Amino acid sequence: MLCLQSHTQDAWLQRAIAHTADILIDHAHCERKAAANALNLLGRFPDHAELQAPMLALAREELEHFELVLAILREREVAMVMQAPSGYQAALFALVRPGMPHKLVDLLLVGALIEARSCERFRLLSEQHPDAALRQTFRSLLESEARHYSVFVRLAEQQAPRDAVRERLQVLAEAERDILDTVKPIARIHA
Amino acid sequence: MLCLQSHTQDAWLQRAIAHTADILIDHAHCERKAAANALNLLGRFPDHAELQAPMLALAREELEHFELVLAILREREVAMVMQAPSGYQAALFALVRPGMPHKLVDLLLVGALIEARSCERFRLLSEQHPDAALRQTFRSLLESEARHYSVFVRLAEQQAPRDAVRERLQVLAEAERDILDTVKPIARIHA
Repeated sequence: MLCLQSHTQDAWLQRAIAHTADILIDHAHCERKAAANALNLLGRFPDHAELQAPMLALAREELEHFELVLAILREREVAMVMQAPSGYQAALFALVRPGMPHKLVDLLLVGALIEARSCERFRLLSEQHPDAALRQTFRSLLESEARHYSVFVRLAEQQAPRDAVRERLQVLAEAERDILDTVKPIARIHA
Repeated sequence: MLCLQSHTQDAWLQRAIAHTADILIDHAHCERKAAANALNLLGRFPDHAELQAPMLALAREELEHFELVLAILREREVAMVMQAPSGYQAALFALVRPGMPHKLVDLLLVGALIEARSCERFRLLSEQHPDAALRQTFRSLLESEARHYSVFVRLAEQQAPRDAVRERLQVLAEAERDILDTVKPIARIHA
């Protein structure tokens, strides 16, 4: 699904269900970071006009999701707190190659992979979390994560020959699978 | 006005009018950075629930303004590009004290001062720029800059005794005046 090179194991799902508050807090942080990342790309590559409309739309939507998850946390009286990172995002971003167009291609593909993994895991939660309201929430977010994945891949394909981008996506997707096998097994969307 | 310790000189206005494209590009970057800064505060101080609603509202509004300015640039066929910074923001943020609550108070007051200076200068542009459409644009943004200033000051006053915060605002406002006197005189909102 969505280029991912591994299926999430049941152990992740069981941990996520057992630590739902932690997963929701991490989810809020993920939406905030996704919005910030979209703005950051526009700041680092301002002359890439093709990024503007899609990254603005992404920032707007991620900001809305961030608000939605913060509202769910408030409703459940779960306090938003700082969390130790699993190391997943840092390990992925460390793979970004220097020099153009490699740097931009890789940043977009890393963005795509993060969205793809969120999508895969939100689907599991939307099907198997014991809380019906949360199943519904994750179901409502699935479709946009999949769409964001496509937006990032399409933008990457505008930066370099399509075959080279597809090949790089394969390499990064394999790295993403290996990173997930090695990061700390804590209750996070990406761990 | 708005706690500022100096009035902008006519030399700034003449430079801004002579280099309108540069000012608009910088303005777009400023709106993007303001949105990113609001998200950044929520990331650094997630347990400060009182920041959530105002910083989300701010991020949303700055994102809208960023889109608005990008649309104006497109309309005028001015390409968005990277710009050398004047050094103003870096010099202001360098004044942020370590340790809580000082760090958060200062970050909020620096945010307030940046908004206050934008507001003062947008007013000049809204009154004296030769282009009527731009006068109208800057007039439409004035009110929100002034409101954002108040939001930041009010939040700072929730972090520490009101008198101490007011005193610190005075110190930082004097520093802001001195920073403006020393940064490179290039065509930027804050230079």
